[in-house]
Amino acid sequence: MNISHIEHLGIAVKSIEEQLPYYEGVLGLKCYNIEVVEDQKVKTAFFKVGQTKIELLEPTSPESTIAKFIEKKGEGIHHIAFSVDGVANALAEMEAKGVQLIDKAPRGGAEGLNIAFLHPKSTGSVLTELCENPNK
Amino acid sequence: MNISHIEHLGIAVKSIEEQLPYYEGVLGLKCYNIEVVEDQKVKTAFFKVGQTKIELLEPTSPESTIAKFIEKKGEGIHHIAFSVDGVANALAEMEAKGVQLIDKAPRGGAEGLNIAFLHPKSTGSVLTELCENPNK
Repeated sequence: MNISHIEHLGIAVKSIEEQLPYYEGVLGLKCYNIEVVEDQKVKTAFFKVGQTKIELLEPTSPESTIAKFIEKKGEGIHHIAFSVDGVANALAEMEAKGVQLIDKAPRGGAEGLNIAFLHPKSTGSVLTELCENPNK
Repeated sequence: MNISHIEHLGIAVKSIEEQLPYYEGVLGLKCYNIEVVEDQKVKTAFFKVGQTKIELLEPTSPESTIAKFIEKKGEGIHHIAFSVDGVANALAEMEAKGVQLIDKAPRGGAEGLNIAFLHPKSTGSVLTELCENPNK
């Protein structure tokens, strides 16, 4: 598996609208996309910082894993996503190395990426996503 | 304030030695530096991922803020550090915008950087560091 860069950092927030003054007004970043990911029950807002995106994650339902994360740990950094050159091959390699997978196969994520999550039990408690842009 | 990229991500771990098989053996990243930061009571290990470093933070004393973080929240992502073009000016700008500062002035951090922390109360609960490389 070849990791080229950190594709994004997911940050759990109660309200994207309430966070915009900080990310835009204070840090001077520009929100270039807001997208609802129905099957994850989240609304996402994206900012670019060099090679990496910051992805704010707001739950759209109390059943969302993000809502449960906030309930348990509070708002804050939720996951790290590495850009790899092929998610399916990377998952096979991870599984062969004994890593516990959340997603056994790549699935569609925000911004048209193919994504899969590794279980934090195998990643030093850091929820970790692998992703690739199929259009590149 | 101009943020060029995410300089590093700080990840709190109980033991760097126990995490090396994951970061090196599983992810295929290379630990290029291990450094003790005495005044922060931490040992740090660095890996490069594109523009960004992953900085593992292991407490060297139960008094370390990292030890307290792990006790309260468990191991995981501890802070995000943005590379800016001048930490002192950035702090002045942050303060003028009403951001609560942990460090009123830049101080020395790992790898010879000038650094300062913003308070998570002002940053959507994400402990945030500003840093610059004075040798660039």
